[in-house]
Amino acid sequence: MNDRLFRIGVLGASGYTGAELLRFLVQHPHVEIACLTAGRNAGQPLASVFPQFLPYNLPDLVSNESLDWAQLKLDAVFCALPHGTTQPLVASVRLKSPSTRIIDLSADFRLHAPEAYAHWYGAAHTEPSLLQTSVYGLVEANRAALKDAFLIANPGCYPTASLLPLLPLVKANMLDTGDLVIDAKSGVSGAGREAKVSSLYCEVAEGFHAYGVGHHRHMGELDQELSREAGCAVSPSFTPHLVPMNRGMLATIYAAAHVSAEQVHAELTRTYQAEPFVHVLSFGQTPQTRHVRGSNHVFIGVVADRRPNRVILISTIDNLVKGASGQAIQNMNLCLGLPETLGLEYAGVLP
Amino acid sequence: MNDRLFRIGVLGASGYTGAELLRFLVQHPHVEIACLTAGRNAGQPLASVFPQFLPYNLPDLVSNESLDWAQLKLDAVFCALPHGTTQPLVASVRLKSPSTRIIDLSADFRLHAPEAYAHWYGAAHTEPSLLQTSVYGLVEANRAALKDAFLIANPGCYPTASLLPLLPLVKANMLDTGDLVIDAKSGVSGAGREAKVSSLYCEVAEGFHAYGVGHHRHMGELDQELSREAGCAVSPSFTPHLVPMNRGMLATIYAAAHVSAEQVHAELTRTYQAEPFVHVLSFGQTPQTRHVRGSNHVFIGVVADRRPNRVILISTIDNLVKGASGQAIQNMNLCLGLPETLGLEYAGVLP
Amino acid sequence: MNDRLFRIGVLGASGYTGAELLRFLVQHPHVEIACLTAGRNAGQPLASVFPQFLPYNLPDLVSNESLDWAQLKLDAVFCALPHGTTQPLVASVRLKSPSTRIIDLSADFRLHAPEAYAHWYGAAHTEPSLLQTSVYGLVEANRAALKDAFLIANPGCYPTASLLPLLPLVKANMLDTGDLVIDAKSGVSGAGREAKVSSLYCEVAEGFHAYGVGHHRHMGELDQELSREAGCAVSPSFTPHLVPMNRGMLATIYAAAHVSAEQVHAELTRTYQAEPFVHVLSFGQTPQTRHVRGSNHVFIGVVADRRPNRVILISTIDNLVKGASGQAIQNMNLCLGLPETLGLEYAGVLP
Amino acid sequence: MNDRLFRIGVLGASGYTGAELLRFLVQHPHVEIACLTAGRNAGQPLASVFPQFLPYNLPDLVSNESLDWAQLKLDAVFCALPHGTTQPLVASVRLKSPSTRIIDLSADFRLHAPEAYAHWYGAAHTEPSLLQTSVYGLVEANRAALKDAFLIANPGCYPTASLLPLLPLVKANMLDTGDLVIDAKSGVSGAGREAKVSSLYCEVAEGFHAYGVGHHRHMGELDQELSREAGCAVSPSFTPHLVPMNRGMLATIYAAAHVSAEQVHAELTRTYQAEPFVHVLSFGQTPQTRHVRGSNHVFIGVVADRRPNRVILISTIDNLVKGASGQAIQNMNLCLGLPETLGLEYAGVLP
Repeated sequence: MNDRLFRIGVLGASGYTGAELLRFLVQHPHVEIACLTAGRNAGQPLASVFPQFLPYNLPDLVSNESLDWAQLKLDAVFCALPHGTTQPLVASVRLKSPSTRIIDLSADFRLHAPEAYAHWYGAAHTEPSLLQTSVYGLVEANRAALKDAFLIANPGCYPTASLLPLLPLVKANMLDTGDLVIDAKSGVSGAGREAKVSSLYCEVAEGFHAYGVGHHRHMGELDQELSREAGCAVSPSFTPHLVPMNRGMLATIYAAAHVSAEQVHAELTRTYQAEPFVHVLSFGQTPQTRHVRGSNHVFIGVVADRRPNRVILISTIDNLVKGASGQAIQNMNLCLGLPETLGLEYAGVLP
Repeated sequence: MNDRLFRIGVLGASGYTGAELLRFLVQHPHVEIACLTAGRNAGQPLASVFPQFLPYNLPDLVSNESLDWAQLKLDAVFCALPHGTTQPLVASVRLKSPSTRIIDLSADFRLHAPEAYAHWYGAAHTEPSLLQTSVYGLVEANRAALKDAFLIANPGCYPTASLLPLLPLVKANMLDTGDLVIDAKSGVSGAGREAKVSSLYCEVAEGFHAYGVGHHRHMGELDQELSREAGCAVSPSFTPHLVPMNRGMLATIYAAAHVSAEQVHAELTRTYQAEPFVHVLSFGQTPQTRHVRGSNHVFIGVVADRRPNRVILISTIDNLVKGASGQAIQNMNLCLGLPETLGLEYAGVLP
Repeated sequence: MNDRLFRIGVLGASGYTGAELLRFLVQHPHVEIACLTAGRNAGQPLASVFPQFLPYNLPDLVSNESLDWAQLKLDAVFCALPHGTTQPLVASVRLKSPSTRIIDLSADFRLHAPEAYAHWYGAAHTEPSLLQTSVYGLVEANRAALKDAFLIANPGCYPTASLLPLLPLVKANMLDTGDLVIDAKSGVSGAGREAKVSSLYCEVAEGFHAYGVGHHRHMGELDQELSREAGCAVSPSFTPHLVPMNRGMLATIYAAAHVSAEQVHAELTRTYQAEPFVHVLSFGQTPQTRHVRGSNHVFIGVVADRRPNRVILISTIDNLVKGASGQAIQNMNLCLGLPETLGLEYAGVLP
Repeated sequence: MNDRLFRIGVLGASGYTGAELLRFLVQHPHVEIACLTAGRNAGQPLASVFPQFLPYNLPDLVSNESLDWAQLKLDAVFCALPHGTTQPLVASVRLKSPSTRIIDLSADFRLHAPEAYAHWYGAAHTEPSLLQTSVYGLVEANRAALKDAFLIANPGCYPTASLLPLLPLVKANMLDTGDLVIDAKSGVSGAGREAKVSSLYCEVAEGFHAYGVGHHRHMGELDQELSREAGCAVSPSFTPHLVPMNRGMLATIYAAAHVSAEQVHAELTRTYQAEPFVHVLSFGQTPQTRHVRGSNHVFIGVVADRRPNRVILISTIDNLVKGASGQAIQNMNLCLGLPETLGLEYAGVLP
């Protein structure tokens, strides 16, 4: 790594994941922010949408359509656009600027099988050949492939929180993959910045509820990655819930194990001992979302269930950071050959 | 029922369940509040602790010790005292005022086996013979016995939310009782009004966490009631979580079923069709805590899990109402021969 | 008053003030709910919008246009419709059903001068003659006129919280009306249930801000009522703020006084001593929004400012109750000849 | 500035301001954390109190008493101890390690007059001579003196939010200093991490209230600094309020001006145009606490009041950052000769 600045773009900078990318990027020592795009806010300064960036010198928002990809010569671009809108855009960038690394925060390139995409997202994928070339950006599970990737599908928040504790155990054949329950809880920023009644303060504050019970799109990612690792079809029970908090995610996972809970704990500890962002707590300790709030860290706890031969795993991330924008920058660092933790070393914000 | 006023006392009126009892009692058409007690606030008006009662004419707080039970001639008394402190007091009231119905909101009389009490609460029960006479106050499951009860053990909030959907299904032999997972979430008022760091605003707001993982006192009640109904030992996996909200509770229950999810739904619908407070939603619909906030209602949803032969049950209560003070008044109405819903007909407060 | 049921309608039952009206009306002993209307939810049961009403037997939502006013024979109707939409509807109801009392919760009939309406709401009033006949529904200030009113303009929340402490002092000529500062704070439900970005959970939670600084529509009501009482033009400084809470309102008022703070306190105490809903705290005590949450009560505190000859007044209401739907029902009781407190005797919900 | 690491200590690392200091210090490029102290948590790792620091390599907590000041050779030490406990400790550090810069986050050295300290804090100051040597650490107002200071009294949060907009206007003689109203609102972390009922989640969430009405300790600082700048006694009306949010502070200031609101705006804009952390919004724009959440930035808005010759100023800070720990690090940078913004360049966290 030398001291050069990499030219970076953010498509969809007026949403929460876009703003979160910029929170990290304005501080990143090797990044030059070359362009920011938005839809109806194109033409305005970013600070008109997100006043927190008033003190920072950033390019104005422009439309996606106005970008001259050949001339921009971006080293990397983040796509933080709504699900379903990214496919033709990514195809176009790959064509016009083949040396630009693309990190897509939408769900459009996460499911490698076009039929799985069609099943979970209700429409045919328009770029099935590109789909084959995308690399699933769960860094700790896929680091080698990501270094050379040109199209990175940044994982969903629920899969990130669930797969990090589960994949090493599935790999070690420690769990009964036919008997998994993932009860997951998310802060509200996961619903994005779209104006809808169900995201209003008065519909969310001072209350709690499950949603997508029995059928949620992130099941597609969970199944794909767990099945790949297990070598057989795995379909956990999965229920997401909405917590009245801005950010944070916690997954409580109930599993039948072939080994003791202590052995499960030892395996996870061993797997993640050198990871900068994944931390396995002492056996029996459990994490809180506020311990990782605002940070790219993941905390995992392992507890013996009182039912014999069963273990309870609890993992927590910040859904906007390790669950979205932080992991995206971790992927950027990786594919640009930068130290993986650069610009991401923040501690959790408590309170 | 005639128009007489029943003389009622509340022991421990300066805690949240005490205040919640009074919120209902000041409006109850057949109640005369004869005495209110508190510890260090004895001697003060209730409004000095809870200013919301300023507009109401209520007796001042006195100490438990100052009460002359024989002279008070209470028809019913609520004990809203900390766990472990109620046993000798209840014994004394039974002795000095045998016609007074006692509704105990603590955990002291919920576990009928003294050894179970000792296991979960870490001390020998001081009144094991009284323990045998107490009736578990889950009204919908135990109505007949409660009408004649003199010592009612008001259920815990987690058991109330869990048992109402589970007991009828266990009774109908529809579930595999060896494979139950109860993932439960509670508002903060369940922790009471004691000054402790873990209940501070900054330690609770904008975050979420599990607690008591693998070992929580309410497991004792769950096991007792489920095992009784099943006729064999039942010990579900159970994990409570803390939600940043004042009140509300939601249990997400994962179960293997011998019948279809639709049959599970039909059984619950049939069981509760005439109940004034328990409402089974249409098949596939799921409830939110805010739908029952401030009310004595229980909403239950039934969804088919995507894993075959499995069902997801979601139930919600207000932990301070049906999970504590509302159910206590329901029990009072029942044992005093009043209409069960009297003073409890409130709709949920949303927003 | 006899035991008859009065036939009541609610126009706009799918908003927060509509839901709040129904929370009280379903429990009101002399009310029969004859019709509920909504816009795009017409045709559905109310419980499909507000599941908290699932346990209650209520008419389905219909459109305003479908109502046959002559046949409905309503004793009273609540209009809980958006500002600006109520004028022709009210005119039509007055014509077709002249014996129906109308309680309008919008701002359409609060400003008696058509030019004031045009100034603050940016459009000419379409029913200026009706405007003259409307009675401003601040009960404690206007009780006599309200008993005979057929068109009641229910006050805004900020004016209710501000005028109750100020009007008696202006009337007693105790304040310098040229030097008033009203710094007011509201919960989020005051913004209604419309889907807009500024009301999203993530734009409101964990933050605080002023809005409408220097120019807010409720200034029109404040000026009208204060000027009427003072007999000269009064225009206080007024700044509203948004608090991350569902409901509640608190006004902190800074005033120069011709008398001592103790005399100010005595005057307010004297004025409100017999009022069922307005409570003046002991001198120096100050109220909290949570003391009146969910209730129709108003708490007022009086403190001496450390600057000489100045007083600080703090008043609190629930913006959805005394600031909207509760006061509307108080007005209904009044104009129908019922006891004013009927169905409104609830204590505050804390926590 | 060279690349050396400065040796830094934090006394009182187990409170919120201590944790917040460490959030910035673990990332500061020129800081070596040499010691951390705590009271009853001495002997434990910091992560046992604040798990967010688990991923960071930090010294264990020790007691204040166990420190060998001569041997420690700290370049700077932060005192984040409760008010009233810092005086003898500071005296001791000054004596034993005279080259150590002390930045005191308590109120103990903010009021230069011992009699003012006694008035506002209710006890005689034990180190009145040291009091004379302390420098008030409001950086933007006092930069020159702070560079050479050995004892810096870090300002209170309310004074910081209030003085930054007011001091330049008082200096320019633009305001009537006899007619100032400061209505201020703070998040809950300002109350610290002590276990007390008034800071419990259920006593704070979903509500709002004023406290210290008519008499609050920060009035002493406000009066001292405003009077110094004005050259005459200034005592604004000041009311603090508690907002249900973890962090953030907003002051709404009502003032009579000798000049137009536009001229007030121009003066503030001119004063702060080169400041890295203080940002004056466009005329008529107003800030939100969430725009500066987690950051050291200050946003100030200026609006013309509708009352003639009056202006409304709104300023916002994060009470834990610019209102405490961030400003303390700004002071550290300054007195150690480092670039003032080092380790503090973070953007606000929204959502």
